[in-house]
Amino acid sequence: MRIGELSARTGVPAATIKYYVREGLLAGGERRGHNQVEYGEEHVRRLRLVRAMVEVGSVPIAKVREVLAEIEEPDRDLDSTLGVASRALSQHRVPVEPPAEEDLETARAIVRRRGWDAIEPGHPYLWTLADAIGRLRELGLADMVDMTGEYARAAEIVAEFDLALLATRREPDEILEAMVVGTVLGDAIFEALRRIAQVEVSARVFQRGQRNTEEPESHSSTGE
Amino acid sequence: MRIGELSARTGVPAATIKYYVREGLLAGGERRGHNQVEYGEEHVRRLRLVRAMVEVGSVPIAKVREVLAEIEEPDRDLDSTLGVASRALSQHRVPVEPPAEEDLETARAIVRRRGWDAIEPGHPYLWTLADAIGRLRELGLADMVDMTGEYARAAEIVAEFDLALLATRREPDEILEAMVVGTVLGDAIFEALRRIAQVEVSARVFQRGQRNTEEPESHSSTGE
Repeated sequence: MRIGELSARTGVPAATIKYYVREGLLAGGERRGHNQVEYGEEHVRRLRLVRAMVEVGSVPIAKVREVLAEIEEPDRDLDSTLGVASRALSQHRVPVEPPAEEDLETARAIVRRRGWDAIEPGHPYLWTLADAIGRLRELGLADMVDMTGEYARAAEIVAEFDLALLATRREPDEILEAMVVGTVLGDAIFEALRRIAQVEVSARVFQRGQRNTEEPESHSSTGE
Repeated sequence: MRIGELSARTGVPAATIKYYVREGLLAGGERRGHNQVEYGEEHVRRLRLVRAMVEVGSVPIAKVREVLAEIEEPDRDLDSTLGVASRALSQHRVPVEPPAEEDLETARAIVRRRGWDAIEPGHPYLWTLADAIGRLRELGLADMVDMTGEYARAAEIVAEFDLALLATRREPDEILEAMVVGTVLGDAIFEALRRIAQVEVSARVFQRGQRNTEEPESHSSTGE
């Protein structure tokens, strides 16, 4: 296909496609004579992956290049490529200062209790987790830290669906695209759903609580 | 207590305390003679709440004032105060443009299927949800939208723990503080845990997948 069709199929403007080729994020098309360059399905897939990382994941171009190099590496298994992509996506979240050792230990204990043993003890996500735990502790809300273990159960449910979606895809480019989009938009979707669910549960807990106070005769206060 | 002790107990510098008093976010202390102002426990609570909104939740001062006015309102139940605080926290996430009607309908259907009926059909979080759904659709990843229903189940688990934490508190200021901190730091904690869980599940799914390919003799491929 010509660059116009590639652009139409991926939603990426022709000028941006040319920029990605110059930056080495996309192989050039096949020259078929004067002013005519042909692109194939592999360009469509790669372009969708690049767009997902740049536009949805806000991954810097240099990091995108690293992730793509990882895909080309013949010895890499998909799990390790996903790990590289996942680190590229989360970089801005990782605290610059190392978290306090006690918070890191709390974070590791939460992970251990869940039976999770694939994550390395110095992984950046453990830092992010420890950092948030430290902030709760400093705010004097240590009882919220205990809740983190329960969050882990919900996170595992979500992660299992995340991975099930990847498993329906075959090409590494498509798996990575789904992973990037799913991770970033999944965060936004989960945040919105958590807040909607809070509205629902709050209506159940606090409106009923108030009715109990106002009309004590109509309820037995067993405090379920 | 004097302003120095109030500052020490809340971690808010004295100059910032005075600024909050000038801005009407905190009642002034009781004057006890020349250059001596006394503050009480209600100042400690209110200051912690203000700090949680400003520092943890990045809520603008004008919005903080609205939330505080809501607490003072004698006719308001806690559920509606939580709703106001929750909207103040999420403002930056709500899309400026109204989402496409088809995406909003998909969002409402997800909420309905979960049996959630307290949320109003025009609630900003439904917009946020619809916006993310629209982006998945535009990216050609409609199968990920179906997953959103499963996310809702996990979100309900999290929201129930969130509300359980609030229910252990008695003063409206403390409930709101826990809600603000729990919502904002809870997002960060859940994001980190989701990514850690993805590492775990990915190791299970994709490393095993690869081992299956390399050593087919040692596994039966029942595809559990």
